Amino acid sequence: MKLKVYADRMSQPSRAVLIFCKVNGIDFEEIKVDLSKRQQLSPEFRAVNPLRKVPAIVDGRFKLFESHAILIYLASAFPGVADHWYPADLSRRARIHSVLDWHHQNLRRGAASFVLNTVLAPLLGLRANQQAAAEAEKILISSLSTIENIWLKGNGQYLLGGLRPSIADLSLVCEIMQLELLDEKDRDRILGPHKKVQQWIESTRNATRPHFDEVHTILYKLKTRLSEQQSNQADGVMQSRIRTPLSSKM
Amino acid sequence: MKLKVYADRMSQPSRAVLIFCKVNGIDFEEIKVDLSKRQQLSPEFRAVNPLRKVPAIVDGRFKLFESHAILIYLASAFPGVADHWYPADLSRRARIHSVLDWHHQNLRRGAASFVLNTVLAPLLGLRANQQAAAEAEKILISSLSTIENIWLKGNGQYLLGGLRPSIADLSLVCEIMQLELLDEKDRDRILGPHKKVQQWIESTRNATRPHFDEVHTILYKLKTRLSEQQSNQADGVMQSRIRTPLSSKM
Repeated sequence: MKLKVYADRMSQPSRAVLIFCKVNGIDFEEIKVDLSKRQQLSPEFRAVNPLRKVPAIVDGRFKLFESHAILIYLASAFPGVADHWYPADLSRRARIHSVLDWHHQNLRRGAASFVLNTVLAPLLGLRANQQAAAEAEKILISSLSTIENIWLKGNGQYLLGGLRPSIADLSLVCEIMQLELLDEKDRDRILGPHKKVQQWIESTRNATRPHFDEVHTILYKLKTRLSEQQSNQADGVMQSRIRTPLSSKM
Repeated sequence: MKLKVYADRMSQPSRAVLIFCKVNGIDFEEIKVDLSKRQQLSPEFRAVNPLRKVPAIVDGRFKLFESHAILIYLASAFPGVADHWYPADLSRRARIHSVLDWHHQNLRRGAASFVLNTVLAPLLGLRANQQAAAEAEKILISSLSTIENIWLKGNGQYLLGGLRPSIADLSLVCEIMQLELLDEKDRDRILGPHKKVQQWIESTRNATRPHFDEVHTILYKLKTRLSEQQSNQADGVMQSRIRTPLSSKM
């Protein structure tokens, strides 16, 4: 029975798992759990993941969720996966665990909360919490500095001095990719100073082509929609600025 | 060269790593990094962990931090560790990763922030943030419900239906143990409804005796100090209540 991957491509850990499967030629069925339609709350999906989050997998009778656990399982259970994704060597493996553990309370927390409380909240009909955005930005910027100065230290193109990408590279890069949705000013301020991070994103993208861009298409489309909205809003502001003095003269 | 464990027993993941080493007869040297003296900021410790957090280990020339990564490494690298701590079986191992991943943004986030913003902040000369405490309490209670209803589902005494403890049991129980510092009313409200959680804490404690209590001694002592302070403060309140009407009559 084919591996089932329950995912919504709008979710960054879902994208990491999908890209991993495609890059490694794992035969799988992608089952969309549409978060915008709250399908994660359905009884069918609850039977897959009682915590009602994507991504989740079903491999035969085995059910699993949490993207890092899934990536490790797939790298271990599918014989075609090259060693660099999740090395058998204990100490290299341990350092990958260390990055993945760090990710949760740092990069993930900062990036997800910042994007939610700036560009995503209005789309979801939620109020963007400015204080939460400010706190998230601090965590995000400090996380990017840690990646730049600690995790990317050394001569390798990848985290921990790696010459080829691991599951940690894929997971963290997919997290950062959601910053594409920010308006240009925010994105430049946050990502701009981190040159090694930018190179590493490109390396990871190149190493996982064409699947990386294919799976991120949904994000690129939303980015276009958001920048159109922003330029419409900017036009709106201009028009109201032009209109105001006119009307005040009447 | 003996394994070095850099730890402060006031830190719950430090306690988990120390208990693990002791229970499994791992020969190690405990090196105290006193957080109250900000020793984690020293250049010596920075050379061990550039992120300046405990616990961290040095095994020969290999340095590692993040407690889950450390527990996995120790269970894999030291041959005396029984399989139940970190099973070789891929699917059992994967589910342990899943619990450990979940822990970061749920139980850890709720418990650590709640304890900080209630009883610890005043001790550390910080202001307790009531709003942060209220948010943390929600995350904490929802995390305990998830442990009770999902992770402890089944007949085993341990997480994921286990008959013997894994590194996930040890890590999560050590996290919950810090709730001992709360005043009794808060602790009862939060832990009281979760009977299975309480039994599981006891089972984990019993399975790791006498090391569990030995490593937690620092916590039990602080608990005693805090309840003495509280009863002194309560006396103080009584006295000021007695004094106020007197002075207002003058």
